[in-house]
Amino acid sequence: MESVKLFGTWSSPSSKRVEIALKLKGVEYEYVEEDLQNKSPDLLKYNPIHKKVPILLHNGKPIVESLLIVEYIDETWPGPAILPSDPYDRAMARFWAKFLDEKCWPAMKKAWLSTGEEQEKANEEANEALMFLENELKGKKFFGGDTIGLVDIAANLIALWYGINEELSGLIQQPLTKDKFPNLCEWVDEYTNCSFVKENLPPTDKLAQLYMARIQADKASAQ
Amino acid sequence: MESVKLFGTWSSPSSKRVEIALKLKGVEYEYVEEDLQNKSPDLLKYNPIHKKVPILLHNGKPIVESLLIVEYIDETWPGPAILPSDPYDRAMARFWAKFLDEKCWPAMKKAWLSTGEEQEKANEEANEALMFLENELKGKKFFGGDTIGLVDIAANLIALWYGINEELSGLIQQPLTKDKFPNLCEWVDEYTNCSFVKENLPPTDKLAQLYMARIQADKASAQ
Repeated sequence: MESVKLFGTWSSPSSKRVEIALKLKGVEYEYVEEDLQNKSPDLLKYNPIHKKVPILLHNGKPIVESLLIVEYIDETWPGPAILPSDPYDRAMARFWAKFLDEKCWPAMKKAWLSTGEEQEKANEEANEALMFLENELKGKKFFGGDTIGLVDIAANLIALWYGINEELSGLIQQPLTKDKFPNLCEWVDEYTNCSFVKENLPPTDKLAQLYMARIQADKASAQ
Repeated sequence: MESVKLFGTWSSPSSKRVEIALKLKGVEYEYVEEDLQNKSPDLLKYNPIHKKVPILLHNGKPIVESLLIVEYIDETWPGPAILPSDPYDRAMARFWAKFLDEKCWPAMKKAWLSTGEEQEKANEEANEALMFLENELKGKKFFGGDTIGLVDIAANLIALWYGINEELSGLIQQPLTKDKFPNLCEWVDEYTNCSFVKENLPPTDKLAQLYMARIQADKASAQ
């Protein structure tokens, strides 16, 4: 019998990427919540190099790194395609997913955690990165076109973060506003209203509390 | 008629990755050498986000990021497979390629450019990263098994760097020694002796000079 186990944490956008891909494909799985302050022997055994979640354990074989897991899921199970079939479109999807992880998310985090001049610079970088995504969505419902694909699942972190926008408004500057980024804001609505995404969103108040505590702790330790 | 153009620089291990993948597949291409101190309008047009090489232009469409280009080449042209066909093996190949870019290479660069205590720590990190690769090669000729695959092409940078080992020995500490990393050193020999790799290696003396100048400049500006 097939065994599919996911090690994750409820607040991690990366873990959520994997859950959403599994739900999109209709794959049954067992979910194991990890406490990152006290990592389980299984976590350390299955991801000895990075020692982090998510980890997908498929018939006893571990796969790590959220985007690689999503590609694995797409190649392994039937159901709606997550990556396009055309090689050029696939390369572009991988490009934007990588861009989200390597450019967009670090700039957004820096904009949250820095202050003064550094924050202004980081805000500019985050704005620039988000504007590339805004343009990429022109005339499209999802990054993947009419249906959710790799880039939508990767951009999960923007949707989660947008959801706690208001709660954090006193604490951080929010570059993602409807007047500046109408396409991205509309995308967040469309994306978070898909049933298999909606049922996977972490509770907004709990997530806001967690991020608020993290931001305050990071700012305090940076001073 | 098909048009394949590669924008690269002779000393870049990332550009070389793409050239080696094209040669492996037997794809004819036009090569355009870029001067990164004076980037061409084409470079800025085809890679407006990262503004760097390599860029593969296939029938007028640009693909960027070396590992993504290599996957694109594998999916587009017939010839020897670069990625394995099994989804789990594919995920593992992508994992090690990512590991080389995100863990191994940054640790090696840091070990070159830092001094004192910081250098000792960086050397330890580089050693640890290389040891994961050393173990991955156990009982195998190439990372890809009997033939060159994605991880070998990604690990290109280790082969290039090993080649200028001696020239730089007075300047940097070399963790990649035969007694500590016999599998990796043997891999470098096997890899660099493949005809389509060999004909693509940059001249060792020119490369050593370039790196030497860079390391000295970086160390000077860090002081």
